[in-house]
Amino acid sequence: MRTLYTSSEDAEEAFYNAIGHGDIDALMNVWAEDEEIVCIHPTGQRITGVGAIRESWQAIFGDNARFSMQARCLVRWESMLLCIHSVIETLYVGDEPMPHAQMLTTNVYQRGADGWRLLVHHATPASEADHEGADFADDFGGGERTLH
Amino acid sequence: MRTLYTSSEDAEEAFYNAIGHGDIDALMNVWAEDEEIVCIHPTGQRITGVGAIRESWQAIFGDNARFSMQARCLVRWESMLLCIHSVIETLYVGDEPMPHAQMLTTNVYQRGADGWRLLVHHATPASEADHEGADFADDFGGGERTLH
Repeated sequence: MRTLYTSSEDAEEAFYNAIGHGDIDALMNVWAEDEEIVCIHPTGQRITGVGAIRESWQAIFGDNARFSMQARCLVRWESMLLCIHSVIETLYVGDEPMPHAQMLTTNVYQRGADGWRLLVHHATPASEADHEGADFADDFGGGERTLH
Repeated sequence: MRTLYTSSEDAEEAFYNAIGHGDIDALMNVWAEDEEIVCIHPTGQRITGVGAIRESWQAIFGDNARFSMQARCLVRWESMLLCIHSVIETLYVGDEPMPHAQMLTTNVYQRGADGWRLLVHHATPASEADHEGADFADDFGGGERTLH
């Protein structure tokens, strides 16, 4: 029984909660059941299809210390059937109180018979230069500030 | 006078042609006139808004040897108003006959009164591991092959 997400925000919340819990079934529940779904990891690997994406996240959950991601959607575009979120992810590892890294992410959701589902998750490490700001997250606030 | 792109493919072709010619005006013509447009460079910098994106590409064109990108769209999702292309870019620098690098890119287009325009260009360096294949581009063919 797949949870039905009535908005792309609900799907996104479920996605990052699943990451925080290392819950592969919950994570895969967010993805569309489509062999063309695409996951681009911060390592620069491009994974497609339900089976390979599940395998890659299982490896990530297995190989690493417990970690969680705080996601902040900076801007989104929505049409009837597609929604794009431009997100900044802050990675926390183990019990470290300070952020471990930040990722710039594009998430694409599609609305179908079973609600909103993830089609594309594309995550990039944010540049070190950007980390120098005293309050990094705020540098990305509201889509009004620019970085260059 | 802005060229009107009647499909996201036309817009994408214009985008990569503009890069190959180092033509900043042609490049900016492809982007939506929207202060929330997002460009994530392979360096991990996130740039937003027409002015800052123009400035960043001007710097790229100015700082580098002549280069071009061959873009191949591996999978796309289209609705009435939005279209997402998952692309692999092959970078050629100067007169080097061999590809210099490959990037994994998500391009998002929006249809408006002035046709299809670019909202998001998110480019990631493909991992070195993926470069090991004898024919790298084919490893990404048709969204049927998986990499892990």
